[in-house]
Amino acid sequence: MEVTVVGAGLVGCLLACYLARRGHEVTLYERRADPREAGAERGRSINLAISERGIDALRRLGLDGEVLAEALPMPGRMMHAIDGTLSFQPYSADGRRAINSISRGELNRKLLDAAEAMPGVRVHFGHRLTGIDDGVLTFDTPQGPVTSGKTPVVIGADGAYSAVRAKLQTQPGVDFSQSYLDYGYKELSVPARYGDFAFDPGALHIWPRGRSMMIALPNPDRTFTCTLFWPHEAFDALDTPEKVRRHFAEHYPDAAEAMPGLADDYAANPVGNLVTMRCSPWHRTIGPTTIGLVGDAAHAIVPFYGQGANCGFEDCVELDRCLDETGDDFPAALALFERRTADTEVIARLALDNFVEMRDKVGSRTFLAGKRVEHALERVLPGRYASRYELVSFSTTPYSEVERRIARQRRWVAGAGLGVAALVALALRRGK
Amino acid sequence: MEVTVVGAGLVGCLLACYLARRGHEVTLYERRADPREAGAERGRSINLAISERGIDALRRLGLDGEVLAEALPMPGRMMHAIDGTLSFQPYSADGRRAINSISRGELNRKLLDAAEAMPGVRVHFGHRLTGIDDGVLTFDTPQGPVTSGKTPVVIGADGAYSAVRAKLQTQPGVDFSQSYLDYGYKELSVPARYGDFAFDPGALHIWPRGRSMMIALPNPDRTFTCTLFWPHEAFDALDTPEKVRRHFAEHYPDAAEAMPGLADDYAANPVGNLVTMRCSPWHRTIGPTTIGLVGDAAHAIVPFYGQGANCGFEDCVELDRCLDETGDDFPAALALFERRTADTEVIARLALDNFVEMRDKVGSRTFLAGKRVEHALERVLPGRYASRYELVSFSTTPYSEVERRIARQRRWVAGAGLGVAALVALALRRGK
Repeated sequence: MEVTVVGAGLVGCLLACYLARRGHEVTLYERRADPREAGAERGRSINLAISERGIDALRRLGLDGEVLAEALPMPGRMMHAIDGTLSFQPYSADGRRAINSISRGELNRKLLDAAEAMPGVRVHFGHRLTGIDDGVLTFDTPQGPVTSGKTPVVIGADGAYSAVRAKLQTQPGVDFSQSYLDYGYKELSVPARYGDFAFDPGALHIWPRGRSMMIALPNPDRTFTCTLFWPHEAFDALDTPEKVRRHFAEHYPDAAEAMPGLADDYAANPVGNLVTMRCSPWHRTIGPTTIGLVGDAAHAIVPFYGQGANCGFEDCVELDRCLDETGDDFPAALALFERRTADTEVIARLALDNFVEMRDKVGSRTFLAGKRVEHALERVLPGRYASRYELVSFSTTPYSEVERRIARQRRWVAGAGLGVAALVALALRRGK
Repeated sequence: MEVTVVGAGLVGCLLACYLARRGHEVTLYERRADPREAGAERGRSINLAISERGIDALRRLGLDGEVLAEALPMPGRMMHAIDGTLSFQPYSADGRRAINSISRGELNRKLLDAAEAMPGVRVHFGHRLTGIDDGVLTFDTPQGPVTSGKTPVVIGADGAYSAVRAKLQTQPGVDFSQSYLDYGYKELSVPARYGDFAFDPGALHIWPRGRSMMIALPNPDRTFTCTLFWPHEAFDALDTPEKVRRHFAEHYPDAAEAMPGLADDYAANPVGNLVTMRCSPWHRTIGPTTIGLVGDAAHAIVPFYGQGANCGFEDCVELDRCLDETGDDFPAALALFERRTADTEVIARLALDNFVEMRDKVGSRTFLAGKRVEHALERVLPGRYASRYELVSFSTTPYSEVERRIARQRRWVAGAGLGVAALVALALRRGK
């Protein structure tokens, strides 16, 4: 079957691999130039944290070893207090499971190599989709407008601002929403210090400051990529190098010391937006073409649970499963794939909720105590009790099932608490 | 000041009148041909019920008499039971206040006349907006593409599928949602019977059937325009004239008898969609141009409270007020106009809620008894107690204030109820 995938980002490339393995002819169109030749866009990426869902999706194609070769494991969070105090919180009860820092550009280049190595995959760069009409796709290219042949199946993996979704949104009955946070983000960087990492590379670093937050993820070249999250108007207020330096010296003193290029980075790098997008349904047959969506095109989420790419990769596994169940009947498979909405809705919400946790609560004693109790329960009841973070990051339990399990656990713990209280009351009574 | 209004529908025309009265030069662009020459689109309109908010907006320009000359007052609802039983519910406590049936096409033609009669208003028909870039508007016209001069202010009054809003939606930080009901609607018609109205013209007729609903509004030519609301898949299932006739004979026997052209109408008229659209903010300055939205372009709502056009007309009054308060500074006035979101959010929700009431509850005894109690309270406590329907339809109290007042009244009635109970308890105790 001939399948067109729009977008050769992370999810588009991985989907092309999955589809090619099933024997389909895949044509992959990408708006930008080949990043392996042109060099990646800089100054606006948040480093990715690949965790179990993403690794599982790569592993099923035998790509995990190669793709993750240079990723740096982060088994926990390192909190930076204003006074310079560091505190480490392991992500897992045994302290060994880790999420993995990797740059988006690096990951994209490896996945492009993987897709091009598959039989039946053709990639066209510099093709910006401008329309889908009567089964024909039109593109703007550096050489002028180009049209495709009749296209039976088009899958949009073209990100939060998807051109494929724009076509779908014009159809009556297609619900859609875009919802921005008042917060934006800016990339900053911490260079290597005397040839070594400026901070512990075995952690995701967080500077929780209530109204703002900064994070830093390690890179193989011993630098860190930092991301500052802050309300848009706050970014604008720091309009001179002096103001930038003064603000960071006051609120992020240990980071400011490690950022000699801070004021330049701050002035040069744009403020990115944080948006949640929802679309329902994700597929529709329009004339001779069935259109579907995966990844951010279907469900863009904010980055605060580190699940955007992982969720998109898991989409590929799930769509592959839907193709299995329908004998590669794409309209039927894409209809079946709508069941994944239950999961993507959950992670969209968790990602929004986690922003509050990361920017504020991770620094509080109550929160830290809660985490310790949680990890103690996990150790005492292995396999019976697991934290939400562990289930999201270190399992492939569907997101919606994670939420059901967390609800069951809470009822169970509350019940056990009541039981203990009853036993104590009984003991006291007998003691009378 | 030069102001561009996109869309010469009901709200665009009325807004042009308001702006021209303030002394602005208004250019009005309309996608369609002049409806006064071309004849209105037929077969997909729901008749409008103009009530106090709409009348007030017309009255402030002295247009109410002329525009509403041919409107037919409907002082209540006439319920049609399956067995043919009719029951009339007045809309107001005194039974005299009425909403007014008028065809959208008729109203549009009169408002176009009114706009063109104002000094400083120019109207261009056959201009479909295709882009807003660097202050220049581009249009497709029957004569080919056309561009405007530099345009400082563009106000989108171009309906639920607004091209102006499409531009706004591409801006980071602009939240948007479109949400469809599973229900669609189809226009049907009841001709005059022996030269007279087939039903009482002094009512909005409703056939509440639970899963479906039909309404009929009278026209000056003694016909009724009917609208059937039904789930999309139900419409599709009636795919032969015989099935159509059988269904109507079973569920709408008295209406079916009055519709000799039913099967033809049913086959010829399309099924319309019912959508709620939200956008926030409604305005943004992009380069040299400040863009704003009014009416359905800003807040398309479902038709079940009869408030779509009334709310859009009231937008014009409110924007006029904002221009007063800001000395005709359009960017400032459009920023101030955002306060109206509190009101449009309320009517969007009430319109959705009213669908359930109209299709189901209006037929129930509890509902009818509740209405009678409400009207009794209104008569006993004139000016102190008013029903939500009266406040929405027969006042210009802002929608959000209506909701606050209803909440206060409910607390008061509940309190009075408790007070009565306490007095009774006291009396019983003393009686012992």
